[in-house]
Amino acid sequence: MKELNVALIGCGFMGKAHSNAWRSVRLFYPNAAAYPRLKVICGAPGEDVQRYADIYGWEEASQDWQATVARDDIDIIDIVTPGKLHAPIAIAAAQTGKAVSCEKPLANTMEEAESMADAVEKAGVVNLCSFNYRRVPAVALAKQLIEEGFLGRVFHWRAQYLQDWIVDPSFPLVWRLQKSEAGSGALGDIGAHIVDLSHYLCGRVTELTAHMETFIHERPLLAEVTGGLSAEAGSGMGTVDVDDAALWLAKFDNGAIGTFEATRFAPGGLNKNRWEINGEHGSIRFNLERLTELEVFSRKDPEHIQGWKTIQVSQSVQPYVAAYWPPGHHIGWEHTFINSVHDLMEAVVNGTEMRPTFRDGLYVQKVLGAVEASNDSRQWEKVL
Amino acid sequence: MKELNVALIGCGFMGKAHSNAWRSVRLFYPNAAAYPRLKVICGAPGEDVQRYADIYGWEEASQDWQATVARDDIDIIDIVTPGKLHAPIAIAAAQTGKAVSCEKPLANTMEEAESMADAVEKAGVVNLCSFNYRRVPAVALAKQLIEEGFLGRVFHWRAQYLQDWIVDPSFPLVWRLQKSEAGSGALGDIGAHIVDLSHYLCGRVTELTAHMETFIHERPLLAEVTGGLSAEAGSGMGTVDVDDAALWLAKFDNGAIGTFEATRFAPGGLNKNRWEINGEHGSIRFNLERLTELEVFSRKDPEHIQGWKTIQVSQSVQPYVAAYWPPGHHIGWEHTFINSVHDLMEAVVNGTEMRPTFRDGLYVQKVLGAVEASNDSRQWEKVL
Amino acid sequence: MKELNVALIGCGFMGKAHSNAWRSVRLFYPNAAAYPRLKVICGAPGEDVQRYADIYGWEEASQDWQATVARDDIDIIDIVTPGKLHAPIAIAAAQTGKAVSCEKPLANTMEEAESMADAVEKAGVVNLCSFNYRRVPAVALAKQLIEEGFLGRVFHWRAQYLQDWIVDPSFPLVWRLQKSEAGSGALGDIGAHIVDLSHYLCGRVTELTAHMETFIHERPLLAEVTGGLSAEAGSGMGTVDVDDAALWLAKFDNGAIGTFEATRFAPGGLNKNRWEINGEHGSIRFNLERLTELEVFSRKDPEHIQGWKTIQVSQSVQPYVAAYWPPGHHIGWEHTFINSVHDLMEAVVNGTEMRPTFRDGLYVQKVLGAVEASNDSRQWEKVL
Amino acid sequence: MKELNVALIGCGFMGKAHSNAWRSVRLFYPNAAAYPRLKVICGAPGEDVQRYADIYGWEEASQDWQATVARDDIDIIDIVTPGKLHAPIAIAAAQTGKAVSCEKPLANTMEEAESMADAVEKAGVVNLCSFNYRRVPAVALAKQLIEEGFLGRVFHWRAQYLQDWIVDPSFPLVWRLQKSEAGSGALGDIGAHIVDLSHYLCGRVTELTAHMETFIHERPLLAEVTGGLSAEAGSGMGTVDVDDAALWLAKFDNGAIGTFEATRFAPGGLNKNRWEINGEHGSIRFNLERLTELEVFSRKDPEHIQGWKTIQVSQSVQPYVAAYWPPGHHIGWEHTFINSVHDLMEAVVNGTEMRPTFRDGLYVQKVLGAVEASNDSRQWEKVL
Repeated sequence: MKELNVALIGCGFMGKAHSNAWRSVRLFYPNAAAYPRLKVICGAPGEDVQRYADIYGWEEASQDWQATVARDDIDIIDIVTPGKLHAPIAIAAAQTGKAVSCEKPLANTMEEAESMADAVEKAGVVNLCSFNYRRVPAVALAKQLIEEGFLGRVFHWRAQYLQDWIVDPSFPLVWRLQKSEAGSGALGDIGAHIVDLSHYLCGRVTELTAHMETFIHERPLLAEVTGGLSAEAGSGMGTVDVDDAALWLAKFDNGAIGTFEATRFAPGGLNKNRWEINGEHGSIRFNLERLTELEVFSRKDPEHIQGWKTIQVSQSVQPYVAAYWPPGHHIGWEHTFINSVHDLMEAVVNGTEMRPTFRDGLYVQKVLGAVEASNDSRQWEKVL
Repeated sequence: MKELNVALIGCGFMGKAHSNAWRSVRLFYPNAAAYPRLKVICGAPGEDVQRYADIYGWEEASQDWQATVARDDIDIIDIVTPGKLHAPIAIAAAQTGKAVSCEKPLANTMEEAESMADAVEKAGVVNLCSFNYRRVPAVALAKQLIEEGFLGRVFHWRAQYLQDWIVDPSFPLVWRLQKSEAGSGALGDIGAHIVDLSHYLCGRVTELTAHMETFIHERPLLAEVTGGLSAEAGSGMGTVDVDDAALWLAKFDNGAIGTFEATRFAPGGLNKNRWEINGEHGSIRFNLERLTELEVFSRKDPEHIQGWKTIQVSQSVQPYVAAYWPPGHHIGWEHTFINSVHDLMEAVVNGTEMRPTFRDGLYVQKVLGAVEASNDSRQWEKVL
Repeated sequence: MKELNVALIGCGFMGKAHSNAWRSVRLFYPNAAAYPRLKVICGAPGEDVQRYADIYGWEEASQDWQATVARDDIDIIDIVTPGKLHAPIAIAAAQTGKAVSCEKPLANTMEEAESMADAVEKAGVVNLCSFNYRRVPAVALAKQLIEEGFLGRVFHWRAQYLQDWIVDPSFPLVWRLQKSEAGSGALGDIGAHIVDLSHYLCGRVTELTAHMETFIHERPLLAEVTGGLSAEAGSGMGTVDVDDAALWLAKFDNGAIGTFEATRFAPGGLNKNRWEINGEHGSIRFNLERLTELEVFSRKDPEHIQGWKTIQVSQSVQPYVAAYWPPGHHIGWEHTFINSVHDLMEAVVNGTEMRPTFRDGLYVQKVLGAVEASNDSRQWEKVL
Repeated sequence: MKELNVALIGCGFMGKAHSNAWRSVRLFYPNAAAYPRLKVICGAPGEDVQRYADIYGWEEASQDWQATVARDDIDIIDIVTPGKLHAPIAIAAAQTGKAVSCEKPLANTMEEAESMADAVEKAGVVNLCSFNYRRVPAVALAKQLIEEGFLGRVFHWRAQYLQDWIVDPSFPLVWRLQKSEAGSGALGDIGAHIVDLSHYLCGRVTELTAHMETFIHERPLLAEVTGGLSAEAGSGMGTVDVDDAALWLAKFDNGAIGTFEATRFAPGGLNKNRWEINGEHGSIRFNLERLTELEVFSRKDPEHIQGWKTIQVSQSVQPYVAAYWPPGHHIGWEHTFINSVHDLMEAVVNGTEMRPTFRDGLYVQKVLGAVEASNDSRQWEKVL
């Protein structure tokens, strides 16, 4: 069993999720090809990185990503920084021949995303754009069923990612509501996930028509820019220049048609990433708010007992489940990252395929770009 | 208590539903302003109308709608014929001063629909375009909640009408799959319902972008054209020239945005007419497949116990329920028609407002027309 | 097609449900062996029976059940009176050779029930103890699945009938809370239903241990004894001498074991008659509050896609459904009675078997008697 | 922030769950009173304990529990051994003044359990009987609601713990099916959990009547006794001498009545630990298979919008949630242990109350003892 040295670049919310994954993967996958050594966590200058190292369990703390990326003793660079740093770090990491994982969205601009995909391919390094929902066991089971022919020809893709955390007009103008920081609003943050899932489970979008909406245009400025969603409002108002919601209709390369909706204005949606796919032999649907369940409908069941079946995805015969607990002892959201780092290490050691790649991440951004273009042009736009 | 004489024009599937309503309304509403007398049922020449009269409980049978409409002893004309007869019958009925109910969609062409709306308004007669789902108790409760301010400002309308009865390619080319007979496919048949519901519960669509799709273009011809869905395939193939599915995005006059989807290609959807509406104070959703339930989410609940609440709409304090059975003794789909004919008789006797009117039915057709126009133009189209 | 003349004895809540069934059965079953003629409704002396005849659609009104039962032109006597009249009417009807239907529970005493079962068997007349829930299509489908071997050997029966209409201590002392009128409380009213369902779907109870509880012992007397649940409280308090809840554990003749619970003190239970049955090959469960659904789990499904399946029982291949509406256009509680009177007429005309018989009704009362005996003895009691 | 040294005694399935908790608690609770140091894991002689130390992240490995318990540098002893070792280890640990946590059931005999409770109380050490389901956030929220008066007077407790892993008769005779090893079957394994939950949420059982059943009496012997559920059957058959299912009715000290059912013969139950509690103001229910949800019904809601509400327990205002992820990013089963070790460390450092104690664990065993006694006596038995 091999030991792989990991450097994590970034300390925020995603730093917690990724640290937990690296810490826990050996306990759950004791027979994997490798286990990680949590070598170094790297924060921004001025950040109390040592505290994160202590809490999250990293051996060293650094404030210098360039030096970290340049180290000889690191096998994997895991990037969870703000988007604008993705490209320089990832490209530098690729050039040193390290495997590289990068949080979604891949980059803030299409150009950056393209250069990142080119860089890792040129360097021939394992690369992962961390759309973690592919590794929810229920989603992986859906993929398996589709490959087994459960659906046959696909007619419809239908996805909604519903949240509600900014419905209150007094919720302040955090960085996620500013175009300069976040690139876009609901579209890039959560819409990106349903694009990647549609790519994984259905196919590639060829063209689309879209509408984006901002319901609340002015919000209280933050008292202090402390980052994060829990910061308090101060005096003064600022302008929201990202979308609160984005809707689009799409045509897929396999002849299916789809609807997509991403919004932060749906009360009762905490993290309701749900999708449904309809094919000639049946249908499959999923809701992240019940992430251990997959619902399927088969037209091949005897006619008098056809119906939607709720599968608890917690049997050892199902994807990823054997690593965890007995049937009905459910796992949670964080385990998607444990599965990801496990698969990433397998790819590094054994050369197994690792998806979604940076190239897959670039595809997502092309779709999001077409959404914005269509919202501007009020016409159908092709995804090139 | 007044007796109102009713003539039913049409003997098909909807004839059964309407007959049942007229037969049953007195038992459920014994204290209403009026009770109906099932005077005459009128079928097409050649039809065994007497058999329908016997089974459905009408006093007389006729094959002559003109003569029926002209009778002095009829108070209400109820039209459940194929669409092309709607306009001549309704207009003739209005001209004799009778109240008139007409099944949806109001007419096969916009011109006919417009002339029908004009005719009943000019005659000043009570008129109903029979979008029955407004009178599901749970839907009427949703309307009441909205009027009570449960939602506040509305952000999203989201409706899907999913069926699956033609997924099998060997399903034959019935009249509903032919443009000459049905006007359109999923759009007019089931899409019309979600347009009317959005009108009732949310507002008026101002513009939309749409896509319509036909997944299966050739189907077996019927052995004999007997009409109806149960007819068998014969030899030879014919062309499907209506939509199997229609999708559109819409902007509403109240600032809300909406998604609509109507399809006959969603396995597991039997009659899944479901919608959700998100507002600043909460959300409401409904699924016709569980028609006695309404689900609501309130942001005004204490934060630690917010959640989606499933209301069984079977309490006497809720709309229409007192007419039926004790709590938890549920009613079904057919009772929407009983509620409709009850309200219609109230309108005739007491002059209470009756909605949806023909004018409301015309609005639905304008939206459907814009969907077709947008599908052709690949652009946003206004609803005039 | 034969015409059968029916007399209904009783005008209360069940009179409405049965009248509706007799009125509607021909419309839904136009090709049945017979259709009914609603000849006469018979109420108590002093009751305004003519009004019920008008509302419910009976040709004649009577206040004399003896005369009604004695008429030569009646084929079927349908008894929906208070329990103490069941025996005299049913026995008299049997002696005239008429088919007889009687509401549950069959009688107020075991002796009466026994004499009723003897009388109909001696007379050789068709007889029905009207446990209507056997004729919910979903329940009939469960029966069919069990007969097809879906469960195999049965291990568990688990039934709960949960209501909540008397949780409020100010709810008055209606007749259902008085032993002299109702015999027992939750036990006989709703517990009886789950006993009959266990008999239908699982087997016969051989012995049981039980507990009955009265949570609220004093309630306001009714201002005026008008009967029914909506009557108002007056001054003064009276004693509740029936059970608010009854629980029992049981052994079945097939080796299965069961739990039963009937209560009127479960907030959120409107009419939650739910049961689950576990066998070697799978499980089946049902909840009357979603009466058009049946849930099944099959151990024979491939292991990675096992799960609970929710079947919408509204396909024409399922029991009783073909009589009604297209898939997903659901029926309600009242249709159980329509199915019952249809089957009863088939039995009268064609001699098909009609269950549950009076003998089945007697069995239910034996179980209820054992529950009361066990509650007194604090021991297991056999059902003889 | 204090560092506490922990020794884990036992390496099996529960060793994995507890190790994960000790490893992860600091990451999730960085501001707690203490963080643990995973000092030593102790296995049985002959066991490859070093491997577990490596995988689970313990500093040292030992095969000598006596020596481990005697160490001066250990603050907390966490026992996850087979039941027969609980008493000697726990008593020894208490005598050295260490805090002690012990897996459920507390002991294999009532005498042992009693001496354990006495020992920790005499020593005055923090003690925990690890019924982890009290620390599911949804369960803790239920407790909070009950303390806030959500239910008022309680009428009913209704609990079922349904599993299905031994339905297949070819499933072999593992240690859990042998009385000498496991003490009892479903009763002690899963029935114990619903007894503890009823104690936590409802009250103390005063008397009960019970039935226990073994459906399959002979099973294949294990090819090799390797322990655990995944072992294979060999040749020869052996006798199952524990219960496959246990049912009981109970009276509580607060006047409520209850039903309990624990079974391994309910297909479709993976880990369906579900309970419902009905009180004068409302009801609460829970199902471990959807552990991030709590369902509540309030009679105080306006009458027309009363219903069961499904609360996603993933808001920072709800118990334990703030330690984890944003709303809708759900946790799993394992986090109950993280919450437990967090609370245990708080108790050690700050002297906060820690429940369930060994005394609470003793209570559970008294109830289970009464179940067995009643099954033998066929009478109601008191819980002393």
